[in-house]
Amino acid sequence: MRIMLRALLPLLLVLLGLAPGAASAEDGYDLWLRYRPLDSAARAKLAPQTRSIVVAAPQSATVNAAVDELQRGLAGMLGKAPATTASAAGQPADGAIVLALKDAALRAGVKAQDLEALGTEGYLLRATRGQGRKSTIIAANTDIGLLYGAFAWLRAARTGQQMDALNEQSKPKLQLRVLNHWDNLDRTVERGYAGESIWHWWDLPEVTDQRYTDYARANASLGINGTVLNNVNSKKEILTSPWIEKVAAVANQLRPYGIKVYLSARFSTPLELKETQSADPLDPQVAAWWKAKADEIYKAIPDFGGFLVKANSEGQPGPQDYHRTHADGANMLAAAVAPHKGIVMWRAFVYAAEKPDDRAKQAYGEFKPLDGKFARNVLVQVKNGAIDFQPREPFHPLFGAMDKTPLMMEFQITKEYLGYSTHLAYLGAMYEETLQSDTKQKGKGPTVADALEDAGHLTGMAGVANIGSSRNWSGSHFDQANWYAFGRLAWDPQASSKAIAREWAQQTFAPQAADDIVQIMMMSREAVVDYMSPLGLHHVMGTGHHHGPAPWVDNLGRPDWNPVYYHKADKNGIGFDRTATGSNALAQYAPEIARQYADPRTTPLADLLWFHHLPWDYKMPSGRTLWTELVAHYDHGVAQVADMQQRWQKLKPLVDQQRYEETAQRLARQLKEAQWWRDASIAYFQSVNGLPLPAGVKAPPQTLEYYKSLQFPYAPGHG
Amino acid sequence: MRIMLRALLPLLLVLLGLAPGAASAEDGYDLWLRYRPLDSAARAKLAPQTRSIVVAAPQSATVNAAVDELQRGLAGMLGKAPATTASAAGQPADGAIVLALKDAALRAGVKAQDLEALGTEGYLLRATRGQGRKSTIIAANTDIGLLYGAFAWLRAARTGQQMDALNEQSKPKLQLRVLNHWDNLDRTVERGYAGESIWHWWDLPEVTDQRYTDYARANASLGINGTVLNNVNSKKEILTSPWIEKVAAVANQLRPYGIKVYLSARFSTPLELKETQSADPLDPQVAAWWKAKADEIYKAIPDFGGFLVKANSEGQPGPQDYHRTHADGANMLAAAVAPHKGIVMWRAFVYAAEKPDDRAKQAYGEFKPLDGKFARNVLVQVKNGAIDFQPREPFHPLFGAMDKTPLMMEFQITKEYLGYSTHLAYLGAMYEETLQSDTKQKGKGPTVADALEDAGHLTGMAGVANIGSSRNWSGSHFDQANWYAFGRLAWDPQASSKAIAREWAQQTFAPQAADDIVQIMMMSREAVVDYMSPLGLHHVMGTGHHHGPAPWVDNLGRPDWNPVYYHKADKNGIGFDRTATGSNALAQYAPEIARQYADPRTTPLADLLWFHHLPWDYKMPSGRTLWTELVAHYDHGVAQVADMQQRWQKLKPLVDQQRYEETAQRLARQLKEAQWWRDASIAYFQSVNGLPLPAGVKAPPQTLEYYKSLQFPYAPGHG
Repeated sequence: MRIMLRALLPLLLVLLGLAPGAASAEDGYDLWLRYRPLDSAARAKLAPQTRSIVVAAPQSATVNAAVDELQRGLAGMLGKAPATTASAAGQPADGAIVLALKDAALRAGVKAQDLEALGTEGYLLRATRGQGRKSTIIAANTDIGLLYGAFAWLRAARTGQQMDALNEQSKPKLQLRVLNHWDNLDRTVERGYAGESIWHWWDLPEVTDQRYTDYARANASLGINGTVLNNVNSKKEILTSPWIEKVAAVANQLRPYGIKVYLSARFSTPLELKETQSADPLDPQVAAWWKAKADEIYKAIPDFGGFLVKANSEGQPGPQDYHRTHADGANMLAAAVAPHKGIVMWRAFVYAAEKPDDRAKQAYGEFKPLDGKFARNVLVQVKNGAIDFQPREPFHPLFGAMDKTPLMMEFQITKEYLGYSTHLAYLGAMYEETLQSDTKQKGKGPTVADALEDAGHLTGMAGVANIGSSRNWSGSHFDQANWYAFGRLAWDPQASSKAIAREWAQQTFAPQAADDIVQIMMMSREAVVDYMSPLGLHHVMGTGHHHGPAPWVDNLGRPDWNPVYYHKADKNGIGFDRTATGSNALAQYAPEIARQYADPRTTPLADLLWFHHLPWDYKMPSGRTLWTELVAHYDHGVAQVADMQQRWQKLKPLVDQQRYEETAQRLARQLKEAQWWRDASIAYFQSVNGLPLPAGVKAPPQTLEYYKSLQFPYAPGHG
Repeated sequence: MRIMLRALLPLLLVLLGLAPGAASAEDGYDLWLRYRPLDSAARAKLAPQTRSIVVAAPQSATVNAAVDELQRGLAGMLGKAPATTASAAGQPADGAIVLALKDAALRAGVKAQDLEALGTEGYLLRATRGQGRKSTIIAANTDIGLLYGAFAWLRAARTGQQMDALNEQSKPKLQLRVLNHWDNLDRTVERGYAGESIWHWWDLPEVTDQRYTDYARANASLGINGTVLNNVNSKKEILTSPWIEKVAAVANQLRPYGIKVYLSARFSTPLELKETQSADPLDPQVAAWWKAKADEIYKAIPDFGGFLVKANSEGQPGPQDYHRTHADGANMLAAAVAPHKGIVMWRAFVYAAEKPDDRAKQAYGEFKPLDGKFARNVLVQVKNGAIDFQPREPFHPLFGAMDKTPLMMEFQITKEYLGYSTHLAYLGAMYEETLQSDTKQKGKGPTVADALEDAGHLTGMAGVANIGSSRNWSGSHFDQANWYAFGRLAWDPQASSKAIAREWAQQTFAPQAADDIVQIMMMSREAVVDYMSPLGLHHVMGTGHHHGPAPWVDNLGRPDWNPVYYHKADKNGIGFDRTATGSNALAQYAPEIARQYADPRTTPLADLLWFHHLPWDYKMPSGRTLWTELVAHYDHGVAQVADMQQRWQKLKPLVDQQRYEETAQRLARQLKEAQWWRDASIAYFQSVNGLPLPAGVKAPPQTLEYYKSLQFPYAPGHG
């Protein structure tokens, strides 16, 4: 029988339009929603529980999306999509998956208080058995809860959960889970390393793209519920009516997946459009313009999310141009969108040209005094650290320090400072490090994550997207994990980045490869820190494009644009003194932290040179001098990349050819560039301190002049 | 039996990893190499002839590519890839496809003179029957001939040829069949409407891309054998060693498919790199620099094709900066690459700032006197018409006029002036129109195509590519046809564009849809001419981006940048007098043409206003006035697009959903924009001539001021 079938197969496949030529490549487009066939044991267990899908909810675009996704997933995993039926009275059929909205869920035996606990976005998954019939209920109070539940059920099925004993409920701990696209209107992407913008502004609104839907699916699978479509360095045109039409077309395509669109607004828009004489937020003509503009937008997009604003920062216009405060500016916009339930996300990333003070102190200096001055529909969006998305930064001192103001976390998913999409660096570990930092504002606690979750006001997390038109979306396969980790942590900031890495790996690669992949991921970010900026060093990268080492740069227009400003290395020592004898940025933290970090001996090694200027022969806990330790960190970073590379090579039999090769090529380049970072950094610091290399350490193969001479025209990201 | 199999299918599919979730979308990535399952009748006929592939040629990357493509194609069409065997002595097995190089072909019964006639790139396909066994021979003198033959065999199978009576031989009529990428080093594409460049310069050379191979396959399927990787507006960096490494990596990936890489060279490169004191082509230091540079390139890329140069045109540097001629410049570069068998393609598209003469005359004026002055490895690359890739231009007067100089045709495949990738316009018809134009330089003939084929020297055709990172490569599905038509006409400039359209449609869509698709294609280009620039009008488009109508523009820096310069419409009449009473550009054509076109009554209507300034009430052959006729053409163009749209809607049952919708959306936008072209043009010309609209003609719905006010920031193509 088996032989006969095999002989007939080609014909059968042709009849079904499923000839091998038509099989999709493992090119990364499917992200973590791959739904490849399960192994036979898993299939045998799952099949009896997935005989049908019962929809116990009124039809809607969102419910349809949930059903479609279940069918797509089951067709992929089992080879067959189950039939869908409307709800029938009584006990569901054996093997049914029941999508049940509130009343139906109650009828199916879900307790009222369990349902209530799910809120407006949560879901409940439960395998039940009654009258000899097995079924699974996916319950929620809302359509979007059902969609999130469908994705959660599929995730459980692909990560080896006991599906016939499933009992899981979850709801998001933050309200706003938002991607920030730094995408320009000409489809270039600032700090984008994954190709041009996925938003085809020219084609819109008439011509849409299947990719918008797949983008929405991927985000909904993580619970991301908002997206800012355009760069924070915004242009006036985005708020003109032809562009509002384009934005509306995108919004229409994302809406079934629970994703609201937001726009970055340029503060001077009405003035630049010559529709007002000023952009002063206290000018009634200006406020009226924004109110009318908000009305126009909401007419086209009834569920428009609101505005993100970068004001008075790096040359952007803002309320300070009129001697008004950030709160004045934010509140004026907030009033315009408030009648429509819109919000304003106002960025705290500011540093003023006229202030020569430590840049790490400026956001706190500007915003702390404004605590309590913002309208209720404003969030202040704060980067994880006080400089700018460095491979490692201590948590931003504003977290825990603004009791009366909702703070929104801003993480960078795109790797502006961590090797673009060429280097493998799992950022989940970095996000977790910040989120689990203890602010000690209330003795022990709150952690940054706790502070974000604080109830009674808006809560949220933003991620600067690493998404582009690259076939694999993120420029490399492993960069997809950073999008994934951001989304999962936005849903639950207390989650473990390692558990998230495992979940991602199990869905994205063969399950047998997951352990080794997780190991590579979990060592990757510290490797980058070690070969780029160990021991608390920061901002030592190339000018403009931010690619590669350039600790020697000292000739830029502002002191705080120069790497030498940040490492302050000289004959005697290295590091930025942020204690009371220096800039005293430490004073912006809770007293207990300020006390602990005031002494280099009680400062964590990882942040040592962030807070202290120390002599080269400073004795480290290891017994080695600072110089020896620094060099050892550079070498360790390179060695870790070599280790990652070897671990990947061992995975070859378990990984499809295309993704294996694409990743192997990148790891080879990462190793080369890690070595370059190490060599150039050591050559430079040695030129400053005049010290011999520690025993056994290899000298950089090139002169410092060579490293200084390297140029990188046409680097991506338009830096 | 059928029922039982159906029940078992899901399991079988899973076992084969071919679950429905894994089936590839009809997203256009596969181009005309789709290889979807044949219908059962065709399959039944083809199967007995494709039982095995016999390789009667030594292994090589190119022969392997031929075998791989046959297997891929047969797996797709029949559901099963045949086994491959090395050549065995004696008669091939029944149903074999034999790839036979020279000696093997002779042994298989191919006559020596037939083989000889194939040259170095031709192929022969022949179905034979001997001793009761059927087989098919694919024969050639070279590996690349075998690859071209394999593609030709697959094309025949998918276009309904009688495969068991196949007897076809073909060789290219032009030697150089080259794509010109106007791709910048930052991945933007000048006049590109298909997304960013496919060349990931940043990732190269370490990180390569599967797409390069698929690009090579698509080009090889058409016989394209060269590609210029970078924009003719070139940058110095492309000739520095890091970039030569990148180019070499691309060359390595394209080489098995018979595609040589070329580079656009900036004439002032050595001077700008500060490696010479001048860029004077007669300066020995400069010549030596280029010779050394060529040696460096050929060391990395032994089969490097050579240079393409845009010099002394639109601000580019060139030999005239040193009072040298174009021949001086071209010959200096030619000497540098000659030892390596490289060539130089020197563009004739020049217009000098200081010459206020009719721009249509300038290339002829510059180059005709240089006839016979170019080195043997130089081609002069001439655009199809004398202005700039307008929807319609009379053939360039240089064709047929340079007896002692190889001329290379330059067509534009990207639709800079024909609606970007939004409008459906099949350019095959336009290419054929130029190629079949009779130059009458020798009484009757040669046509432009004949002139290109003239033997005894280099021959070639260049196409400015419409290829980008868009998933469907060309920005729209129908724009793929323009790439296809260019390639097929470069192979055979005498081919019929309609036959090419049919061939493309049969491979790209369901065969049953081909007739209707060909009808849409064949009406499409004339529709564009009618709604944009009827009756010989030209250069009436928007400034910079070249999008949309702007016949009113009269304020640009040079007279010949302004639309009003080209249409010269006033109260009394319209058109550019290029007869003896005007610029006398006509005198650049053969006397017989000059005579015929001197009189508007014997000038083809399509070119009327290109050559003549005529009163608005000029009586047309139709009996209508020029004004009435002009308006009728605009209306006809719009009506034709509406007709195309309706024809497409009728095809819905025959076209997969994704390509149907994507095309329908574009046609809807095209109709809107065609109407806009018509309305704005009529509003403007009416404002000039003060005439009433002809009876029954609809007035433009907006004022002329409205049309003038429209702005298109962030248009693609970086114009």
